[in-house]
Amino acid sequence: MERIGFIGLGIMGKPMAKHLLKAGYPLLILSSSAGAAALKAEGAKSFENPKALAAESDVVITMLPDSPEVESIVFGDDGVLAGLKKGALFIDMSTIAPATSINLFSAFQQKGVAALDAPVSGGQGGAEGATLSIMVGGEEKAFEKALPIFEKMGKNIVHIGKPGAGQTTKACNQIVVGLTIQAVAEALTLAKKAGVDIAKVRAALLGGFAQSKILDLHGQRIIDRNFKPGFKVKLHRKDMNIALQTGKDLSVPLPASAIVASQMDAVLAKGDGDLDHSALALFLESISGL
Amino acid sequence: MERIGFIGLGIMGKPMAKHLLKAGYPLLILSSSAGAAALKAEGAKSFENPKALAAESDVVITMLPDSPEVESIVFGDDGVLAGLKKGALFIDMSTIAPATSINLFSAFQQKGVAALDAPVSGGQGGAEGATLSIMVGGEEKAFEKALPIFEKMGKNIVHIGKPGAGQTTKACNQIVVGLTIQAVAEALTLAKKAGVDIAKVRAALLGGFAQSKILDLHGQRIIDRNFKPGFKVKLHRKDMNIALQTGKDLSVPLPASAIVASQMDAVLAKGDGDLDHSALALFLESISGL
Repeated sequence: MERIGFIGLGIMGKPMAKHLLKAGYPLLILSSSAGAAALKAEGAKSFENPKALAAESDVVITMLPDSPEVESIVFGDDGVLAGLKKGALFIDMSTIAPATSINLFSAFQQKGVAALDAPVSGGQGGAEGATLSIMVGGEEKAFEKALPIFEKMGKNIVHIGKPGAGQTTKACNQIVVGLTIQAVAEALTLAKKAGVDIAKVRAALLGGFAQSKILDLHGQRIIDRNFKPGFKVKLHRKDMNIALQTGKDLSVPLPASAIVASQMDAVLAKGDGDLDHSALALFLESISGL
Repeated sequence: MERIGFIGLGIMGKPMAKHLLKAGYPLLILSSSAGAAALKAEGAKSFENPKALAAESDVVITMLPDSPEVESIVFGDDGVLAGLKKGALFIDMSTIAPATSINLFSAFQQKGVAALDAPVSGGQGGAEGATLSIMVGGEEKAFEKALPIFEKMGKNIVHIGKPGAGQTTKACNQIVVGLTIQAVAEALTLAKKAGVDIAKVRAALLGGFAQSKILDLHGQRIIDRNFKPGFKVKLHRKDMNIALQTGKDLSVPLPASAIVASQMDAVLAKGDGDLDHSALALFLESISGL
């Protein structure tokens, strides 16, 4: 089985890496990773830096917060790029800018290393339950090689297209989720101020064209005043930034996405960035005098 | 069985009235209605004006384009208000402003006539198949009296609350549907310009939190370039106006709804108002150089 180097053992990365270990893959980690000790106890081998880890890996997976962290781990001193051997595979499962993924692909290609962008959705629950949706960009051959590994971590695994296509799809996902929360928040705020029972509004709307997973789950959160994450506003704001920057790069105006991003800024300004993204409703309520 | 006067025999009203006739209700219509001849042939009785029709009706149902038409039929010379007897029931199934519904309720109440606002969703297909969703505002006793009648025309029938609550819920529905179409349109336009297969994006997003009936049905319309209505942009624009006016009346800012309404204006300006509301995607494509 391939030796898999896994960099980024946070809330998402740690359970993902554990699934690989449990499936029998030799797991290589950085000794500086937060969860290193626990995984070493379960059989993972630890390394001082990304280059050393990559030099002994057949596959390196990164699961990091944003583009700069991935670029630093790959291109930095003692980075992954310097360590990976020809014929190896690099898989970035972070949510980063599509343009960065395309740069990474080119850099690895020059070294004879295949690269995939494979961001996920499904959150901590999906990572722990190995039910993540995985949206993959890159070459077919690399995808086929990676598929058995993906199958240990996720369920709905789709090869979307060329390098960057996975990240573009993730950006689309975050646009749709953000705007649908905004839609539900505007509707329920209007109903609330009109003195109408928002639980009945949610139930009535679920029966027709307004139906969505967001209306179902986040609508219920708004009714229950349950803003414990879930997915934090500040992380969604980061993802909206990727979407808006991609729109700017490609000259695609995204007017409603821009509105939602600036409302998320208002939530952050209030110090509520650690709440669930359904807290967009709290902002609308506050500016409506509720 | 109650004698039902039905005013407004258009694309929606005609099949709804037919279901009542078929169920055995004596049907009273205006001789000036477009479909009057056909319904007379099936047993409906026709009258010269709303007052005369209302005077012989136990229940009057209106299914008209907008608030001014309903006000005119009710309050005008020889109107419904002048004709309906004490103890009768008035049901407006049009989509109009909640504030207007509340005015209608008060006016009828002074005459001892119960009134319900009962807008529908589900479109022409729902009207023909008697599967409309019906959102009802008004008093419980009136709702109970109307329920057997509603059940001849719809399936998902919810008594939301006080007078106007049905219309408020319909406004919420139109906000959520409009913004969700915008969400899908922004996402798929971004993907298209990035050169990513939008059919694969739709399929991947349907598996997660981005799932909605709109992504499913209108996403497929956008992929298929099928903008035949469905629900016309110009009608949805009218409904967004009701939502925005209600927001203004109640001091509830609706920033994304306002953006969507102004994009619908751009679709109308281009002469595309008779297309399906998924044509919001056409506008985004055109301003993105696609």
